[in-house]
Amino acid sequence: MLVLVTYDVNTETEAGKARLRKIAKQCVNYGQRVQNSVFECMLDPTQYRLLKGILSEIMSENDSIRLYNLGDKASARIETLGKSKSYNPVDDFLSI
Amino acid sequence: MLVLVTYDVNTETEAGKARLRKIAKQCVNYGQRVQNSVFECMLDPTQYRLLKGILSEIMSENDSIRLYNLGDKASARIETLGKSKSYNPVDDFLSI
Repeated sequence: MLVLVTYDVNTETEAGKARLRKIAKQCVNYGQRVQNSVFECMLDPTQYRLLKGILSEIMSENDSIRLYNLGDKASARIETLGKSKSYNPVDDFLSI
Repeated sequence: MLVLVTYDVNTETEAGKARLRKIAKQCVNYGQRVQNSVFECMLDPTQYRLLKGILSEIMSENDSIRLYNLGDKASARIETLGKSKSYNPVDDFLSI
């Protein structure tokens, strides 16, 4: 399933920037960074729970993480305007 | 349908901050800001096209907007960690 991870952190502090880097490092294990604090991750239910646990430990209480489970047919429901760094999250994964 | 709008803009410039404010102003007509540059909007297909057009005009070519159509049963697939500003996007809308 494709899970969207959005992360709200105060990046005006060095600590916040460091946490964002750590969050990014975890998320890109499973997918890609599509915007500064938005990641698309391909996860099974076990990986989902694992990632959620790790992110909970990295973040601080004033940060906010939102996880959106887009299911298995997500790519048909994603549109981008302007600069887009991503590839097609579902099909391109399957073609590896 | 619930549509997630994520917006990547350089907010270190005043112009970028102004564009983010304008984007936010448009999106909150249809829903709520759940993170600094993440909005949850309840849109029908016509409103979706309308909002997409308006956002396209506001943004600059170096910005990035991603639109995720979460469908009608979205709330069951959203989890939040840490600070959360939102309400339940589907049920709370219905109870107004």
